[in-house]
Amino acid sequence: MKRVFVAELSGLLGQKVRICGWVFRYRPLAKTAFIILKDCTGTVQCVAAPAKVNDLALKLDDAVEIIGAARAEPRSKQGFEFDLAEIRVLNRSGHNLPFNSSADISGIGQETLLDYRPLALRNESVNATFQIQAEIVRGFREFLTSRRFTEIITSKIVAGGTEGGTNLFQLKYFERTAYLAQSPQFYKEYGVAGFERVFETGHVYRAEPHATSRHLTEYYSLDLEMGFIDSVEDVIQLERELLTHVFQAINGKFGEVLKAARQPELPSMLNVPIWEFGECLERLEKAHGRSDLVDDLDPEAERQLCALAEKENGVPAVFVLGFPLSARPFYTHPGRSPGASASFDLLFRGLEITTGGQRLHTRESLEAAIKGKGMKAESFEDHLRMFELGMPPHGGLAIGLERLTALILGISNIREATMYPRDRNRISP
Amino acid sequence: MKRVFVAELSGLLGQKVRICGWVFRYRPLAKTAFIILKDCTGTVQCVAAPAKVNDLALKLDDAVEIIGAARAEPRSKQGFEFDLAEIRVLNRSGHNLPFNSSADISGIGQETLLDYRPLALRNESVNATFQIQAEIVRGFREFLTSRRFTEIITSKIVAGGTEGGTNLFQLKYFERTAYLAQSPQFYKEYGVAGFERVFETGHVYRAEPHATSRHLTEYYSLDLEMGFIDSVEDVIQLERELLTHVFQAINGKFGEVLKAARQPELPSMLNVPIWEFGECLERLEKAHGRSDLVDDLDPEAERQLCALAEKENGVPAVFVLGFPLSARPFYTHPGRSPGASASFDLLFRGLEITTGGQRLHTRESLEAAIKGKGMKAESFEDHLRMFELGMPPHGGLAIGLERLTALILGISNIREATMYPRDRNRISP
Repeated sequence: MKRVFVAELSGLLGQKVRICGWVFRYRPLAKTAFIILKDCTGTVQCVAAPAKVNDLALKLDDAVEIIGAARAEPRSKQGFEFDLAEIRVLNRSGHNLPFNSSADISGIGQETLLDYRPLALRNESVNATFQIQAEIVRGFREFLTSRRFTEIITSKIVAGGTEGGTNLFQLKYFERTAYLAQSPQFYKEYGVAGFERVFETGHVYRAEPHATSRHLTEYYSLDLEMGFIDSVEDVIQLERELLTHVFQAINGKFGEVLKAARQPELPSMLNVPIWEFGECLERLEKAHGRSDLVDDLDPEAERQLCALAEKENGVPAVFVLGFPLSARPFYTHPGRSPGASASFDLLFRGLEITTGGQRLHTRESLEAAIKGKGMKAESFEDHLRMFELGMPPHGGLAIGLERLTALILGISNIREATMYPRDRNRISP
Repeated sequence: MKRVFVAELSGLLGQKVRICGWVFRYRPLAKTAFIILKDCTGTVQCVAAPAKVNDLALKLDDAVEIIGAARAEPRSKQGFEFDLAEIRVLNRSGHNLPFNSSADISGIGQETLLDYRPLALRNESVNATFQIQAEIVRGFREFLTSRRFTEIITSKIVAGGTEGGTNLFQLKYFERTAYLAQSPQFYKEYGVAGFERVFETGHVYRAEPHATSRHLTEYYSLDLEMGFIDSVEDVIQLERELLTHVFQAINGKFGEVLKAARQPELPSMLNVPIWEFGECLERLEKAHGRSDLVDDLDPEAERQLCALAEKENGVPAVFVLGFPLSARPFYTHPGRSPGASASFDLLFRGLEITTGGQRLHTRESLEAAIKGKGMKAESFEDHLRMFELGMPPHGGLAIGLERLTALILGISNIREATMYPRDRNRISP
């Protein structure tokens, strides 16, 4: 008998069908046993004669299949129940699990949740976290594909770092040493030379020695790069539309999840303003008397700027444009005012969720910038050669997937928004 | 002035617009100069008075922007030409490039094409290769999402190998050694415990010491795993539908590319037969007098079986089911006949493009299988624990993206179907 999903039952009332899933709740009463079965599409209350189930000694999280039929039941929230005719245990759950998937796991320690990750993933809230994460990635790719971007897949084994080489993971690569890529930056720029517009979704690596609630050694980066831009504002406008697209899809599909996490709906980002870096410092001084910031923002400033933006525009988000060039990587394009760069951060709900900008596109300007950073142009020769192939003006951005997921759901520890987080202490499961 | 794509010009005849792209061809004649401009949507012939362009010393692959207007021109294949009013060079291409993007690059050496990858990516045939690759991945994700699969993202930094540990890349991970994942196998099985149906598209790593036309040390694996299956045939049926979905999309969007590569349209895979391993040996003996094969197929047998399948069914593809269990990894589920496994290869056009199968789902059976392979169950304790969480019967498969791309386009060297291939000798660009 073909298996049907729980979500299909409402259209199959009275028909004998087979459903499969996990024992989500179990109440064996004297006259009737109630099993709530959960599959990937939802839950349904199954009603059984005790004789049919008592011998099975069912436990929560046992995997079972049930044959029977759905019957209209006005008292049920779903409008139906499932009359169990036969049940078979497909696999037992263990006797001493530290939690069950139907439990409120807010009190379970994070290490335990990670050690039992598959079970945690079955829990509604953890499951929803990663469903939303998958939706972010899906929406990102969908939007960019509709805008003529091509997905590229580039190597994570590289000969050196994009910015000189701190926090690189070393790899024994046959007779030599290679490294894990910190960013697809160079490759996405090369992609512009071939495809004009490219995106990549993939892992990047930082040998980050701190194990804190904000640091991962491996994270998933949503990268895009576009050619033939007029200015960095083209990239910013694209991101406004991109995030609005992604956010609308999440609101539409996961409105209930956001509510359960006590998080507001995601806003339209179309009117998120651009504030110049210098203007940000002025606003911070005026509103908060701050005069301690010079060439970068600190976490407090990021929160303060989002609050100021929310007061003005109703959305706690702002593009901060024109960070000092000296504080940005060598490939950054200069901005309009002296000493400023054409690069930006997008701050949202108090956190930086994107870094992006226009890049230098001529070999000459890159060479000068490398020297200006005190590095040797010769060691970048293989990279510089790629800018003699007709590289157009271009820019792009990167979004850290785990951080955005956490922000959307109000999760404070980034490890909870990472399916299998890696930090200094953890490499399994 | 907002930039428009070449593909939009047919709807903008007579309007002054700006187009951007590369000089794809250039013919400066005495009375008129012709520039074929190429952007990511196509090419257009631009017509200019010599005085407007002669001083620029245009070269192929220069990046330019052109202002002007499209004008109906019945003699043009597209139905219009573009009258150039102004042109500006955005960036120069180099003087000594080993090839140009508009050239026939079939005679250019592979090392040169890789050293100048961004320029090669601009070439029509190379570009199309990776457009098709992106379409495979897109179609894979789209189909599985429509079938209630959830995308998962799992770590590529692991504590050990899935099968004991040969050909693993070693990573210096702070105070200890970690490895690069050879497969997301364990993680996708865990994903089944949480989501029932999962897929992942990502890199996997093999420290493959041979640098041949078939070996990569890093490749992109399209993985899926589904729970609550009745048998391995559920996985096979899903793959038939999945590949048919992907192939139809490629036929629809890249029919011209397939023609140019002298490759046939991709077939429907819905009727690809299942042949038991033993049956395959019999067929090979009967048709080709072969009696040398015992517990595996060789490349010649794969070609012969595809030819036999084509003769019978019109499609050069066959699922070979039931490889000897002893030759498969420990987690493989036994098949119906003694000594056989419930695992399969999909052969297509003479090559294996998928390995898949049903997996063991109880802790007890896995423990026994590990011991049966001469390994210690204790060293898999962290993994075995995951099978006490109510793991349902499940199975899945993996498709190597580069190999499938190559096969579709008749590319014989897998490096040509890899944007930045990695082998023993090459780690850049």
